Amino acid sequence: MLDAIPFGSLSTVVDGRPWVVPMLFARDGDRLILHGSTGAGALRHVAAGAPAALCVTALDGVVVAASTFNSSANYRSAVVHGPLTPLTDRDEKWRALDLLSDRLIPGRTGEGRPMTGRELAATLAMTMPISEGAWTVKIRTGDPSDEERDDPAWQGVVPVRTVLDPPVPAPWVAGDHQLPPSVSRLRDGGWTGSSRP
Amino acid sequence: MLDAIPFGSLSTVVDGRPWVVPMLFARDGDRLILHGSTGAGALRHVAAGAPAALCVTALDGVVVAASTFNSSANYRSAVVHGPLTPLTDRDEKWRALDLLSDRLIPGRTGEGRPMTGRELAATLAMTMPISEGAWTVKIRTGDPSDEERDDPAWQGVVPVRTVLDPPVPAPWVAGDHQLPPSVSRLRDGGWTGSSRP
Repeated sequence: MLDAIPFGSLSTVVDGRPWVVPMLFARDGDRLILHGSTGAGALRHVAAGAPAALCVTALDGVVVAASTFNSSANYRSAVVHGPLTPLTDRDEKWRALDLLSDRLIPGRTGEGRPMTGRELAATLAMTMPISEGAWTVKIRTGDPSDEERDDPAWQGVVPVRTVLDPPVPAPWVAGDHQLPPSVSRLRDGGWTGSSRP
Repeated sequence: MLDAIPFGSLSTVVDGRPWVVPMLFARDGDRLILHGSTGAGALRHVAAGAPAALCVTALDGVVVAASTFNSSANYRSAVVHGPLTPLTDRDEKWRALDLLSDRLIPGRTGEGRPMTGRELAATLAMTMPISEGAWTVKIRTGDPSDEERDDPAWQGVVPVRTVLDPPVPAPWVAGDHQLPPSVSRLRDGGWTGSSRP
């Protein structure tokens, strides 16, 4: 699930109150990689070791039961709790940021120019461990509850999907400009977590 | 934005640590309606007045720049901070839960059988005010930054959309069973926040 949905909300506690920000992330084995600008104050707070939680959710369908009480939604969600640790080693940070790029556009790293040292310095990269007992997954899938199967009303599911549309070039890019291999692959094969329209 | 995306993550603080759960919600004027089972312990904690935050996010596109550093995502996000208040008045609670049903399936309320008193009692309905200064919206939209416009690499956006697929009847419902008007409207016109495949 953490490989199917590339963004979530990162929560922590600031002055006893909840603090939340949406964030792209990538799973790297048994840890998560997150990033942000080194200028973001609250993010620095999180990076300094405050307890944090990443929540990832996808809506998969609208579940129509005979009654509104039994109507529901199909969804997948994961919450991972853990401390965030900033990556300080230059090579490790580089690799983590490349992984984030390749998460959104598989195979993208290596096509464009590599990051400069200055760009690397301007970016905060953090890891959060995926530890036993520190995550929860909730999934609802399939038909409405069958306890109302004798009700004459229609019952079923309206599926919800995420799709990628054809790439749109920036205005300064010629329409016949060849797509980079990573972007054509994205166009032709979809993206983890998406399907073709 | 709060009308375009029907689910988010609700964060609060439990024992000094972040607590997060995915949740459907509906906007009702200048407040949000949330609901859950009265059995959910942590939800009761939130309902008891702890500070909370609802984060709503949609990914709208993958932004491909010449460099990975300038590559990004188009997205919309809103975070609303505020205390949650459980609805105790029976009629107000009823109306709030109907609003939640109509949020996911517009016009659904009134088609099925109404909630029973028992179902109403088993459901926790809460409101969170949308107060001035207590919310933030972040949006990124459009093309990649044009600072790399002279780079010969392709630059542009791969749009990401949420779509609804044709309704799938439950196995115990005949294939030629007429759809309820609300579900046919959903099938024909899409859903706020979605588009046709």
